[in-house]
Amino acid sequence: MKPQIGVVTLGVDDLNQSLVFYRDGLGLPTKGITGNEFKGDDKHPAGAVVMFHLKGGLILALYPRSELAKDARHTMGVPSPTEFSLGYLAASKDEVDQILNQAKAAGATITDAAHDRPWGIYSGYFKDPDGHLWEVIWGPSTPQP
Amino acid sequence: MKPQIGVVTLGVDDLNQSLVFYRDGLGLPTKGITGNEFKGDDKHPAGAVVMFHLKGGLILALYPRSELAKDARHTMGVPSPTEFSLGYLAASKDEVDQILNQAKAAGATITDAAHDRPWGIYSGYFKDPDGHLWEVIWGPSTPQP
Repeated sequence: MKPQIGVVTLGVDDLNQSLVFYRDGLGLPTKGITGNEFKGDDKHPAGAVVMFHLKGGLILALYPRSELAKDARHTMGVPSPTEFSLGYLAASKDEVDQILNQAKAAGATITDAAHDRPWGIYSGYFKDPDGHLWEVIWGPSTPQP
Repeated sequence: MKPQIGVVTLGVDDLNQSLVFYRDGLGLPTKGITGNEFKGDDKHPAGAVVMFHLKGGLILALYPRSELAKDARHTMGVPSPTEFSLGYLAASKDEVDQILNQAKAAGATITDAAHDRPWGIYSGYFKDPDGHLWEVIWGPSTPQP
């Protein structure tokens, strides 16, 4: 296995609501919902998905939890924010504050306001409408975007 | 907010066990556990973390769910595999099969064996020791790693 990840897929409750948050609220570019032609049923996952093409070729996808469960043949779990977090590397402390404000204005919940942490970074956390955590980070050794 | 993700952090139960899975089982390069000097307590998160440096500058991190909860000031949820999945873009169907076999040999559970899906990809899913889902994907339009 090569050291790479091509796609990060977030399980969501309402594809439209999550699309609005990421596209209109955070400003991420996307074609919107695609794959509507794959209808699915009780056993087979539907194909409707939202994809954002990010820096470095990484894709951020939004996909209903119910369909992810069917696609992976796994029982659907309950929303649980501490399963993972996504880290955004900001270019400055000001950018950390700006992005947290932007996320809040878009409907996110700030779970921890930005502050200096013992390991030398300045960061804060928000969670998106589905409860997924993002840490917005600046540090002296943060790779500059 | 720019279209980028710098870090994907997986919440884990046992840092050592998850390190062994990803480093020894899947072969991802890492310095091992770092940040042990930040001890933490009931309210403050400890700093011990594992980081893997991936293609394109992306970092995959392993961090205890308990500490992620404290760091984000959020209550700790229960393990829940359908919150997200990570997609690995393989170069061929054979590589999809190889990686699923490698993951299984390393202790992962195959939740859905590889097969052709309606939207034109060949993929299968495994879940890691913490229940986090990976989809290993090949498709005619898959960006070649």
